[in-house]
Formats: sequence, structure tokens, C-alpha cells
Amino acid sequence: MKRIILLRHGQSQWNLENRFTGWTDVELSDKGREEAREAGRKIAEAGLQPEFYFTSYLRRAIHTLEIAAAEMERDWVPVIKDWHLNERHYGALQGLNKVDTAAKYGDEQVREWRRGFDAMPPLLTPDDPRFPGNDPRYASLTADELPLAESLQNTIARVRCCWEEVIAPRVQQTGTVLIAAHGNSLRGLAMMLLHLTATDVTKLEIPTGSPWVFTTDDRLRVTDTHYL
Amino acid sequence: MKRIILLRHGQSQWNLENRFTGWTDVELSDKGREEAREAGRKIAEAGLQPEFYFTSYLRRAIHTLEIAAAEMERDWVPVIKDWHLNERHYGALQGLNKVDTAAKYGDEQVREWRRGFDAMPPLLTPDDPRFPGNDPRYASLTADELPLAESLQNTIARVRCCWEEVIAPRVQQTGTVLIAAHGNSLRGLAMMLLHLTATDVTKLEIPTGSPWVFTTDDRLRVTDTHYL
Repeated sequence: MKRIILLRHGQSQWNLENRFTGWTDVELSDKGREEAREAGRKIAEAGLQPEFYFTSYLRRAIHTLEIAAAEMERDWVPVIKDWHLNERHYGALQGLNKVDTAAKYGDEQVREWRRGFDAMPPLLTPDDPRFPGNDPRYASLTADELPLAESLQNTIARVRCCWEEVIAPRVQQTGTVLIAAHGNSLRGLAMMLLHLTATDVTKLEIPTGSPWVFTTDDRLRVTDTHYL
Repeated sequence: MKRIILLRHGQSQWNLENRFTGWTDVELSDKGREEAREAGRKIAEAGLQPEFYFTSYLRRAIHTLEIAAAEMERDWVPVIKDWHLNERHYGALQGLNKVDTAAKYGDEQVREWRRGFDAMPPLLTPDDPRFPGNDPRYASLTADELPLAESLQNTIARVRCCWEEVIAPRVQQTGTVLIAAHGNSLRGLAMMLLHLTATDVTKLEIPTGSPWVFTTDDRLRVTDTHYL
């Protein structure tokens, strides 16, 4: 039996300001840090002891993990930070207020960008400071890996690489892992684990700061899921 | 040219209480957290950009690294946590107040345990809760790796393994690395990098929270060292 715990980071500064965040590296708010502590407490109280951690390249997920790990007194557990677990890249919408964006493009268009499975937000140009090719942390990515924007489908495709090559082998080696990441990257993991359709996954809302525990057999077939 | 930055964790709760700490997993004090922030600021201000982090299994070093990384806005940098970078194991002295210990065993004996190169503190028995074989985080260690106590020489011998197998190859692959660890494990790294004698290394005092920068050539021969 294996256990995979998905944890969506808590409230960030830009959630508070209602802005499209994507790969923008914003901080957790005080409420977000408290959500992370509470998540750590719940995992410890459930008697779960993660033996491997995974997170993204974005500090709101990394700090959620660090705070939860401290709360569990399991700071020493190995961690892999992987950009494949980043939030969906929102292209030229990143930084815009969601209300202003709706006023400019119309509610229907914004709903489609936010909720469609393969809808692509407006693309960045490569000279935009928001383009990841201009950020040293993504220097090792190949040209085809650097997004100008992503659909949910694009996001899930790269999450799948991380699942297959990085996470699943370590779940096999250990018993319990914790993945602290983002709404859309976690949707991708849930889609794979639960064999969801595109329609299912666009409707899936994962709450922040609530550890979502998947129990699987040794071949990683899910036998139970529940939130703590 | 390569850069290796050694950072000794700041004040812990037991430094405050003047107790032998060793592998006991105590927290940083508020002052220790401030020292970590200051260290991160200094590294960033010096224009140094670590591309790999190393730390021990002990939270006072892990938190020092996490706090410094946040201050540098380089949370996303990969980290390896390795028990070989732990503080020296102080055996049956762990948890004892240093003044009480001196009163019991005599100043001379305590000075020898603390300052001798190959002096061995009183050994734990394997049923002692302080024996690392009773802590799940050390479950992967072999019997000969689990200390009942360590001399400085023992500590440096295991630090050497980590340097040769884990750290040095990654310094070769990158340009700059940061190692957040402990007084005695960092002494071991300094001994190797600077070819110190046993006498030199017992006299070496590394200040807390002060990044110590080693510049080396591509074969990791040191060409300069300075504190920030």
C-alpha cells in the first residue's frame, strides 16, 4: 500500500489582490502560512509520515511545504523541486486583475480561458520580462519547454512527465509522499490517478491547504481518496 | 572558477541554554533566525548566486538554509539534505549543561572532549533514546555508520565522504554552492579545502551566520577565502 498526499498551497498575496498569477513568484499571505501550518498538523495527526517531498519552483508552494514539514517535525525528508509542478502559465494575463480582464475581454472569454481544457490565454512575446526564458531559474529548459502561455491541457502534459519520471518511481521506493503544488498542476496529478476525463478535470476544484490523501496498491492503482 | 560558501547555523535554543547539542534536533532561536536572514542578505549583496544547496538532517541548519534562500529569492535552487553534514555526535554528553558537565568530570576532561582531535565523549548505549539507531530518520544508515559518540576525527571522516561523493561533483557541474551546516562538520570541509593539520582544525573557530566564501579553480584548489 502506498500513500500520495496532494497539498495545494494556501492563499498568496495575489490571490488576495485577485490577479492572474501563473508562474509569477509571489509570496504566501499570513493566512496562507497559517493554512500550511494547519495542513502539517493534520498530516501528523493522521499518523502519516511522508518519506519524500515534491514541490514546484515557486515560493508559495515551496514555503507551504517547508512550513508543513516543520509542523510535522519532518524537515529532514528529501525534497525535489521541479518546474513541471509549477502552476499553469497564464501568458499575457499574468499580473492582470481578473475583474479588469473581464471588463476588457468579456466575461465569456475569461471564463473560457480559465475553465476550458485546451483554451490558450493570450501569448507573451519572448522579449516580455514575464517570459520564463528571461528568468535564470529556467535556464536549463529547452526552447520547446519554455511556455509563452499554457492551456490546462499543456500544463497537465508536463505534469505527466514529472509524475512518470520523477514522482512515481519514488512512490514505488517508499510508502508515503507529499506533493505541495498548485491548483492546476495538482489537477493534472488527480486526472492521472483517478483517470478523469477532460470535462471532469475542468470541473475539479481542489481546496487550498487541505491535504488530499490517495491510497493506492503497489501498482499505484487508487483504492481510496479522502481529504484530511 | 568555482565558489563554495560555508554557512554555520545561527543561535539555537540549546546554545542559549549552554547544553551539548550534537544530533539533538533543536530549533533556532529568534536571534538564530535573524542571523540566517542577515547571512542571506550578505550573500545576495555580494552578487553570489548559489546553484546548489547542501545541508544536514538537523532543523537548525535546514531552517538557516531556508531562511537565507528566501532572503536571496532563490528558494527554487535544488537542495540535498545529508546526515553526513550533521554536527558531531556528542554521545552521552548530549543534553547535558556544559557547566554541570565540567563540575562532574572536571574542566580538563571537558576541554579535552571539546577540543581534542580524536577525544571520544562518553558513549551512548544502543537502548538510549539519543542513539540515532532509534530515530526513523536514520533508518537507512548501516550499523557502522550509526554513532554511539564521535570524536572530531570521526566527524571529519564522514564529512569527507559527503564532500567527495555528493558535494564536489556538483561544484564541478555548477559554479557556486552554499552549504549550511554545523561548527564541526564545516571544520571538516575547511580542513579538506585548506589542507589543515589536526592541530589547525581544533583551533579553527567558525563564526555563526557569517558566510565564508572559498574561491577555487576548476580543480577545486582554493585561491582565496573571505568572510562576507
